[in-house]
Amino acid sequence: MNDVINLLNQHRSIRKFTEQSVPNEWIGEIVKAGQAAATSSFIQACTVIQVSQGDTRDQLAQCSGNQIYVAQAPVFLVFCADMHRHKDACELHQQPMLSGYTEQFLTASLDCGLFAQNCAVAAESLGLGVVYIGGLRNQIARVSELLELPELVYPVFGMCLGFPDQNPEVKPRLPLEIVLKQEKYSVDADVKLMPEYDAQVQEYYRTRTGGGKEMTWTEQISGMLVKESRPHMLPFLNEKGFLLK
Amino acid sequence: MNDVINLLNQHRSIRKFTEQSVPNEWIGEIVKAGQAAATSSFIQACTVIQVSQGDTRDQLAQCSGNQIYVAQAPVFLVFCADMHRHKDACELHQQPMLSGYTEQFLTASLDCGLFAQNCAVAAESLGLGVVYIGGLRNQIARVSELLELPELVYPVFGMCLGFPDQNPEVKPRLPLEIVLKQEKYSVDADVKLMPEYDAQVQEYYRTRTGGGKEMTWTEQISGMLVKESRPHMLPFLNEKGFLLK
Repeated sequence: MNDVINLLNQHRSIRKFTEQSVPNEWIGEIVKAGQAAATSSFIQACTVIQVSQGDTRDQLAQCSGNQIYVAQAPVFLVFCADMHRHKDACELHQQPMLSGYTEQFLTASLDCGLFAQNCAVAAESLGLGVVYIGGLRNQIARVSELLELPELVYPVFGMCLGFPDQNPEVKPRLPLEIVLKQEKYSVDADVKLMPEYDAQVQEYYRTRTGGGKEMTWTEQISGMLVKESRPHMLPFLNEKGFLLK
Repeated sequence: MNDVINLLNQHRSIRKFTEQSVPNEWIGEIVKAGQAAATSSFIQACTVIQVSQGDTRDQLAQCSGNQIYVAQAPVFLVFCADMHRHKDACELHQQPMLSGYTEQFLTASLDCGLFAQNCAVAAESLGLGVVYIGGLRNQIARVSELLELPELVYPVFGMCLGFPDQNPEVKPRLPLEIVLKQEKYSVDADVKLMPEYDAQVQEYYRTRTGGGKEMTWTEQISGMLVKESRPHMLPFLNEKGFLLK
């Protein structure tokens, strides 16, 4: 359709970077582009922490299940959902903040999502590659301590940025008819088109791994969802002042 | 820096649209660009419902606190966090899905955030204007019924799209130094720069409203957070199978 849409459609996660450093002023421009995203009721609840010190980076890599690129990428950013400055704003005006609502957790987290995606797009427009690091939530309490996050702040995910030193294929997405429904929810398209998509994903993995992995999408999903999913998250978030009601 | 970053930086919500219709194939391209965003562990947990029927649009506008553009915009999309197809995938492979985890709620919601932001960028690259409609969550149970959403699906937000019939100013964002921190969390920049930003926001509202509204950012935030924040969200989400543990 146009260059912007082509750029969006070419996204794939980059986990291997050249040693070329990223100009420091680019980081500012990328984060400013993140700020330009919509923000729920103007709350601006995303704070980015750039981590450059090698020792902290090593520890964050460990926290993420030893994803080595967390330590090695030229730039590493942690996106935090931040309602701490809102508490300060309330105190400034002698207004007691009512916190702990699920809605506030959701809007702060979504603010980070929109913000970070703008950063990803801005970075890719500059020729950089990125990968989101949800794995930080494996050991979210330790990450939170390392970054000295106060109450009402939590690390949503990280992002590695740098010049790509690999060129992986774009991963095939669900058929549009499954994802875009008309007027109401219906599973008609899912029933009809999922087998075809499963075959497509299987072929993608077969080609990419030289036959080592041949998993369909539904197999991959079902294999993942029989396990517990970071059960420490709710107690951790509660302790930080989120999701209390 | 470049055309893409300029486009991102020019974002402002558009709430008034011309009558020009949006070509139907554009919607498919916009949603495909949304799908191209990163997705946590390949879960692809975002489903978009396009609502065109006037009666449903009127009711959704009511649900959103009578935001008339929800009824009038040429295109209205509802972004849903969807773990229903994952349950189907598990059943297909006779694997009992462990659902209800906070982590799953978060990843599905973030998937929608990244997805929708790509849609917003794609739409704006085509000359369209957009506004997110978080107000759908005012009456989320009724929205959910109208769209016949099954368990493990909830409406995160809506989005109006169309050709802009207004040209509002870009709203000033927090100073970069507050939002981008180095190595660790610190409130030094907040303390130092917030008064200046407050003055800037006050001036923005003064100019925009011809003196009718002169609120600073911290005033706006503190005024908002002394109130309850959609307290129905947690019971509703629990009923849909989310945030149970």
